[in-house]
Amino acid sequence: MFNDLSQHAADHQGNGIRDRIWRIVFLSDTRAGKAFDVLLLTLIATSITVVMLETVPEIQAKHGKLFRVLEWIFTALFTAEYLLRLWVVGKKRSYLFSFYGIIDFISILPTYLTLFLPGMQYVLVVRVLRLLRVFRVMKMARHLGEANLILNAIQASVPKITVFLFLVLSITVILGTVMYVVEGIIAGNAGFNSVPQSVYWGIVTISTVGYGDVAPMTPAGKFIATLIMLIGYGIIAVPTGIVTAELNLSLTEIRLDHRRCPECGHVGHDPKASFCKMCGHDI
Amino acid sequence: MFNDLSQHAADHQGNGIRDRIWRIVFLSDTRAGKAFDVLLLTLIATSITVVMLETVPEIQAKHGKLFRVLEWIFTALFTAEYLLRLWVVGKKRSYLFSFYGIIDFISILPTYLTLFLPGMQYVLVVRVLRLLRVFRVMKMARHLGEANLILNAIQASVPKITVFLFLVLSITVILGTVMYVVEGIIAGNAGFNSVPQSVYWGIVTISTVGYGDVAPMTPAGKFIATLIMLIGYGIIAVPTGIVTAELNLSLTEIRLDHRRCPECGHVGHDPKASFCKMCGHDI
Amino acid sequence: MFNDLSQHAADHQGNGIRDRIWRIVFLSDTRAGKAFDVLLLTLIATSITVVMLETVPEIQAKHGKLFRVLEWIFTALFTAEYLLRLWVVGKKRSYLFSFYGIIDFISILPTYLTLFLPGMQYVLVVRVLRLLRVFRVMKMARHLGEANLILNAIQASVPKITVFLFLVLSITVILGTVMYVVEGIIAGNAGFNSVPQSVYWGIVTISTVGYGDVAPMTPAGKFIATLIMLIGYGIIAVPTGIVTAELNLSLTEIRLDHRRCPECGHVGHDPKASFCKMCGHDI
Amino acid sequence: MFNDLSQHAADHQGNGIRDRIWRIVFLSDTRAGKAFDVLLLTLIATSITVVMLETVPEIQAKHGKLFRVLEWIFTALFTAEYLLRLWVVGKKRSYLFSFYGIIDFISILPTYLTLFLPGMQYVLVVRVLRLLRVFRVMKMARHLGEANLILNAIQASVPKITVFLFLVLSITVILGTVMYVVEGIIAGNAGFNSVPQSVYWGIVTISTVGYGDVAPMTPAGKFIATLIMLIGYGIIAVPTGIVTAELNLSLTEIRLDHRRCPECGHVGHDPKASFCKMCGHDI
Repeated sequence: MFNDLSQHAADHQGNGIRDRIWRIVFLSDTRAGKAFDVLLLTLIATSITVVMLETVPEIQAKHGKLFRVLEWIFTALFTAEYLLRLWVVGKKRSYLFSFYGIIDFISILPTYLTLFLPGMQYVLVVRVLRLLRVFRVMKMARHLGEANLILNAIQASVPKITVFLFLVLSITVILGTVMYVVEGIIAGNAGFNSVPQSVYWGIVTISTVGYGDVAPMTPAGKFIATLIMLIGYGIIAVPTGIVTAELNLSLTEIRLDHRRCPECGHVGHDPKASFCKMCGHDI
Repeated sequence: MFNDLSQHAADHQGNGIRDRIWRIVFLSDTRAGKAFDVLLLTLIATSITVVMLETVPEIQAKHGKLFRVLEWIFTALFTAEYLLRLWVVGKKRSYLFSFYGIIDFISILPTYLTLFLPGMQYVLVVRVLRLLRVFRVMKMARHLGEANLILNAIQASVPKITVFLFLVLSITVILGTVMYVVEGIIAGNAGFNSVPQSVYWGIVTISTVGYGDVAPMTPAGKFIATLIMLIGYGIIAVPTGIVTAELNLSLTEIRLDHRRCPECGHVGHDPKASFCKMCGHDI
Repeated sequence: MFNDLSQHAADHQGNGIRDRIWRIVFLSDTRAGKAFDVLLLTLIATSITVVMLETVPEIQAKHGKLFRVLEWIFTALFTAEYLLRLWVVGKKRSYLFSFYGIIDFISILPTYLTLFLPGMQYVLVVRVLRLLRVFRVMKMARHLGEANLILNAIQASVPKITVFLFLVLSITVILGTVMYVVEGIIAGNAGFNSVPQSVYWGIVTISTVGYGDVAPMTPAGKFIATLIMLIGYGIIAVPTGIVTAELNLSLTEIRLDHRRCPECGHVGHDPKASFCKMCGHDI
Repeated sequence: MFNDLSQHAADHQGNGIRDRIWRIVFLSDTRAGKAFDVLLLTLIATSITVVMLETVPEIQAKHGKLFRVLEWIFTALFTAEYLLRLWVVGKKRSYLFSFYGIIDFISILPTYLTLFLPGMQYVLVVRVLRLLRVFRVMKMARHLGEANLILNAIQASVPKITVFLFLVLSITVILGTVMYVVEGIIAGNAGFNSVPQSVYWGIVTISTVGYGDVAPMTPAGKFIATLIMLIGYGIIAVPTGIVTAELNLSLTEIRLDHRRCPECGHVGHDPKASFCKMCGHDI
């Protein structure tokens, strides 16, 4: 998702105007490219603020027209930028269907759709995803270093945490049903009048959010609620443990010795190593 | 709990129809076995959804009859599957009293019991535990690797976290009693009208759930509540620390090569290494 | 606190009846000692339950007399045990003023005091601290291993976490005062009618408890509340990190190589070591 | 921020009265310096308590005058201390514009300003930042060891956690808008009557604070809320993982000896080791 730019770079070795614009618009390793990215990020942030504030009744009543105009200006700018990207990019199809290509498109489409379908403007907050480009700006600045490792560690953790969330959901479904019987059927607590409603309460509790809109009233219900809280307290540790262990490995790796083997050029030795682990040469 | 299948595998070396069905039903290392597991998991998930939705008053009123029929279809299918398992398995007794054997049985019994005892159908959500088979499907796919290590790390953490939860409960009992005196007896706050009620509030607070159905009203009570929150904030770290440290050890272990250098005997090389990092000898 | 028993052990090498009782009552390394500890822990747990349930209005009305009698029976038993401990222990003064000596005394005193001062019985929940002996039973069973290391890691973390909590409190005091001005003075929100009240709200929020009895009502107040939540979300990581890093070191240590140096008998080498780090002998 | 004192120390090698006062006032490595710091910290803590309690309506009504007088006494003392610091310090300008120099100034200014601008006294709680000097007292006692490493680890984590919080905010903005449409527009839930309001609810939920002043009412809204909670539950792990991994590296580092074996050049011995664990040579 964040690494498909180096491939494009190979296609853009020329020095024509199109390639120079490509470098500014798609990368941020030049002064102009960085300035472009900062300007773009500012525009995106402003446009999201406008979309959000427009929904506040008092602001809508007072400045509705101004916000409508601003929205069209932002959309015009982003449309121009989208067409510019399409013009300069080499493999048009692969940009069009890339993560950012789709996000860029969805970020301008709804404004035009509102001409036919009122209510589409809320989709515009998807623009917030365009802000993810900020990672690229930062990554470049740091020479693809630790930020990338953290992303890798998080990606490595996702399947494990998903399995874990599934286990938490199973516990919540069983205890939620018990609560439905104890609080809903026996005690007649309106907040537990169906199993889905009780499971919702269970998730609100085990995630320690605890709105309090639904709460047990009987001693038995409170006892089971206590169990769910203690389970939640104990197992919140697991996803944290998974991410930390992965990050730990990644960070340890990057802080490995940067000595370069004089024979084979391998970098990333154990700080305690005396010989290159790849070619056996003295280092 | 997840490892008792390899023992069975030894008993099933033959190639009769029973053994081939056994392999499909109990393992998921073949294409047919995997398809069977995916189908079964889908059926289980659907049946749980049906059990849950049936309790929603509006749905019950509209589609009550349909859901009743669906429930009997699911139970018939699961009963057939249960009998099939019983037929193909070698050691019938050890399956009957294994973790999954008991769960499989409890997952079909309640529907029959509802003929005599109305209200038993809620026990059917225990079927959610059958979904734990999903771990097996995933574990197989990953060749028993990291997933198993995470389970080991969690199992190693459970006794330590239990001891820790006991300590948290002790603190909560003492501070809950103090709150009963300060808020319940002195200030007459109805939410603290007994020690168990105050301890319930204490657990709701220290686990950071915080429903707000019971909350201190006096300055002294609020001060003690603050203490409990800060304690909770500080000690939520401990179970996380335990799990993480265990996971860390496990993950580090599996990523270290156990090859021994024939020259200097060094163990713990990088899996990618070709030469001993200590003496430079070929490994 | 948990390690002062080995010193006593040295004073009790004899085989008289007093020393044998001492071993049963103070240690749990014999069958009788373990049975005594389990019986004692059960009695303590029951007596705490009685103290707690006695405060529930309905139970008090129905079984008040029975609970009063039970309480005197427990106190009589614990008094007998206290006198027995005093008789068999060698250094009476050091037991009297030790952590457990004081707890044992406070666990029986209040019942007698209720004859003169009604209301003292609530102090009896302090008996829950006597349950900490459970750690000793478990530690013995595990041969002083990992449980002890976890305690050490937690003890090593306490000063660091305290400093950290102090930092969190500083942030909360400043942001709480800002909220007092914004919500209390300007908007007249009754929940923020003084700085201590606003700081209380701040702690409820930053610890993610979130009762909801006090909540911001103005847009500015909600914005500042959002800041506090995000800060709380970011910094809850720090105490966890401290405990985990300490535990990690401890657990790594105990899993060190258990090879014993043939020359000096040193145990606890690096698994990769070839020579004893203490005497330089080949291992 | 905490390390700029050693530079000053070099300028103060003399033994004049000014230099001796400088050592007492700015450092805490002498008995007098420590006593001064403890007295100052006590005064600051008391003055903050006075500022806070003054805002409680009942206390204000009863002791308003006394608190006003106390406030002027504290300000007089702190002004004297500020002038003393200015007199003894070598580079006056660098103290004036240092972190502590600015805090010290803001801690006395508002009392004088209240003569012209009522309401300025609330700014006085900024004095709580002066309490950060407590870190210095503690750091000195520990010889600049682990406390400093923890600070470094936290500083190393801040940019990564900031990026992460940005990601969390993006998710919250998108899901908050979905909730605005589902709960606010379609179901007419007053708590979701604008996007900013819905995003506020999203942050309250994803940070697991969960006031409950705004809560979803429709099944669809509750389902999306559940998603946000599970996401929050899964990703709270990330900042913790980052801090822990950093701390882990720092703590491991400081506990490893940097002695180099004269025979084989191995670095990273146990601080207690007398012989190289790799070649057995004396170190």
